[in-house]
Amino acid sequence: MPTPPLDLSPLQAQLRAFAQVRNWQPHHTPRNLLLALVGEVGELAEILQWRSDAELAALAQDNPAEWEHLGEELADVQIYLARLADVLGVDMAAAVADKLDKNARKYPEPQS
Amino acid sequence: MPTPPLDLSPLQAQLRAFAQVRNWQPHHTPRNLLLALVGEVGELAEILQWRSDAELAALAQDNPAEWEHLGEELADVQIYLARLADVLGVDMAAAVADKLDKNARKYPEPQS
Amino acid sequence: MPTPPLDLSPLQAQLRAFAQVRNWQPHHTPRNLLLALVGEVGELAEILQWRSDAELAALAQDNPAEWEHLGEELADVQIYLARLADVLGVDMAAAVADKLDKNARKYPEPQS
Amino acid sequence: MPTPPLDLSPLQAQLRAFAQVRNWQPHHTPRNLLLALVGEVGELAEILQWRSDAELAALAQDNPAEWEHLGEELADVQIYLARLADVLGVDMAAAVADKLDKNARKYPEPQS
Repeated sequence: MPTPPLDLSPLQAQLRAFAQVRNWQPHHTPRNLLLALVGEVGELAEILQWRSDAELAALAQDNPAEWEHLGEELADVQIYLARLADVLGVDMAAAVADKLDKNARKYPEPQS
Repeated sequence: MPTPPLDLSPLQAQLRAFAQVRNWQPHHTPRNLLLALVGEVGELAEILQWRSDAELAALAQDNPAEWEHLGEELADVQIYLARLADVLGVDMAAAVADKLDKNARKYPEPQS
Repeated sequence: MPTPPLDLSPLQAQLRAFAQVRNWQPHHTPRNLLLALVGEVGELAEILQWRSDAELAALAQDNPAEWEHLGEELADVQIYLARLADVLGVDMAAAVADKLDKNARKYPEPQS
Repeated sequence: MPTPPLDLSPLQAQLRAFAQVRNWQPHHTPRNLLLALVGEVGELAEILQWRSDAELAALAQDNPAEWEHLGEELADVQIYLARLADVLGVDMAAAVADKLDKNARKYPEPQS
């Protein structure tokens, strides 16, 4: 079996410890975390909503502060996604590997 | 500097190659990928919308098919998030590490 | 005071009666309804995700089935939004009128 | 035929005029407006994410400022939804009436 292409467990361990020491676990229920993720996806959408793909491609040069903001919102989505999967008990490495296999069967390589 | 807690690059390399061989790059613009991510977050929400957190905790036992579906939707969100960051050119390992640092400063450990 | 530009109350009364006769009120909590709305926004995003604005402008002619599907998803978002506001007890006519006033002050008409 | 339970056209006319006088129509494309709607749904989610349904039921009394904020975010979702449907050319009164008919057939009234 090939190495799974993703390992969220170090991030999840760090987020779990961070929540634990702050007594946040009672708030970190699946539904709360999903709503928090939706909130972060919304902040991401706010960055992209009035910008064309060309403007986004030049954002790092044209607007470094907004570029940093973009990275922060992507990170927030990743953090809540990793935490949600951890709290649900879903093995993301396995789930992603399974989905990639399914996609490879669903969309076979075009024959040249 | 400690090891970053996340490495999306193997997944991103695999997704990039998958898109390339199928000539999907013209469709994989930031805004298209964000809308696709919103679609997958919506499918995740559909699984959680009428279920309590207690029902979700028992889902693996009570409804293995829906449990597998849950893993698939989490994987889809992860896949589009990784692809979106790659297309935008955002270094997710750095962005997540930065955000974790910011969170640690914003929410200091409570003193016992 | 001018007529409020929106009256959701006939729709909300109909949705309330529909839920009541089916004993759905226990499920129609604010958080459940918001997740349901997120699910419908996701389905809307799936229709728009790979289509350009030009393709969307021609959708009614080019793909009547998908056009009807688009109307259905917009309706679903509207239905859950009206139901959510009703369950929360928010007066949408007043909230929308207030927001329009606020927007008019925030973005004054350009002087010709 | 019964009166349609919803009439968005006065709101849509007002929003159209508001956009026109500010030369916003070039920005009010379907995909931009959907992303803006996603942004507002995210702000709504942020209000509900750490609150139980019981806390939400008491919000008007316990936290009038946040209650007003809640109304504002619901209004924003409504405004972008009405504008999106208008720009797409979807007749929302008809789409909602159709969907209510479909729901009535899909979920027949329980026999007492």
